[in-house]
Amino acid sequence: MKCIMSIIKINKMNKTKRALRDAGFSSMTATGSVFGRGKGLWDAKVLEGVKNDQPEALELLGKEPRLRPQRLLQVVVPNHKVSECIETIIEANQSKSPGDGKIFVLPVNEAIRVRTAESGDQVLDN
Amino acid sequence: MKCIMSIIKINKMNKTKRALRDAGFSSMTATGSVFGRGKGLWDAKVLEGVKNDQPEALELLGKEPRLRPQRLLQVVVPNHKVSECIETIIEANQSKSPGDGKIFVLPVNEAIRVRTAESGDQVLDN
Amino acid sequence: MKCIMSIIKINKMNKTKRALRDAGFSSMTATGSVFGRGKGLWDAKVLEGVKNDQPEALELLGKEPRLRPQRLLQVVVPNHKVSECIETIIEANQSKSPGDGKIFVLPVNEAIRVRTAESGDQVLDN
Repeated sequence: MKCIMSIIKINKMNKTKRALRDAGFSSMTATGSVFGRGKGLWDAKVLEGVKNDQPEALELLGKEPRLRPQRLLQVVVPNHKVSECIETIIEANQSKSPGDGKIFVLPVNEAIRVRTAESGDQVLDN
Repeated sequence: MKCIMSIIKINKMNKTKRALRDAGFSSMTATGSVFGRGKGLWDAKVLEGVKNDQPEALELLGKEPRLRPQRLLQVVVPNHKVSECIETIIEANQSKSPGDGKIFVLPVNEAIRVRTAESGDQVLDN
Repeated sequence: MKCIMSIIKINKMNKTKRALRDAGFSSMTATGSVFGRGKGLWDAKVLEGVKNDQPEALELLGKEPRLRPQRLLQVVVPNHKVSECIETIIEANQSKSPGDGKIFVLPVNEAIRVRTAESGDQVLDN
């Protein structure tokens, strides 16, 4: 099984939740507010201006690395559902502009349901 | 070593912390508020009513997937302590009703104590 | 690739961000507020006093395990950059006194950029 960890835009959260549920992934964990920063988080024109030493662009960018509020969404899925889960998240978040986010796939050794103490893929959604 | 990642009820947090400490696991990280949703988070009768198309149950459930506030608790333990840690968390959280939470076990390659830069199991609690 | 998960002091956050950016790690995710507790989180003198049953020290420590507010910082880096990333975080956070934090290294199977759906090390910073 794998943990699909997504860093996505806050305003895509509800759309992503619905898309995941519609695809059969109903168990997920969202961290209230995280702050992330990727190379692509700034508007391409601003970055171009910075490269060209345009003062307005430099002012917009600031001197400190800033973290923008994002959402961290975690879903644990069985191995045979990893691709489908990733595609679902991409489809819900892809706007083709910088800042769409990233998805990381981490291995998970085991999943246990607290109520029954049962373990294995049956604890997961699919 | 392993990262034991638990999604548990907020009102079980203190009991879980105490149980872990009493079992010798004193280093833990809790994320302030996460929002999770599992298949079992709804009352069984409500879900039964939804299956039978009872309007009251459908109204309770709502049309959107809702995430309920939960706590995310992470403990990194050496391999030989994984079972004990899981059993401790189950015992503190199991109420036999839906929504008791889930535990995921993730592999961890290394742990480093920042103060001394030392690494290995000695950095962990047990 | 690896996920470098650090539990650090809140007041070291900006210094750590700058140090990581200067070392070429510009994509990171910080969780707003986490609450952690390690064996070393208390002042060494207080712990010594507790060992010696000094009532003032016991009062300071309290009867319950308390979690202190900390920051959780996650950076995903390619394998050949793991050591450099860890050294950067240690350098920014090491005060040689208890509570400097811990770093955990978790394996990551894959990274995907949502905007382009591309995957692999090229999605990461270095």
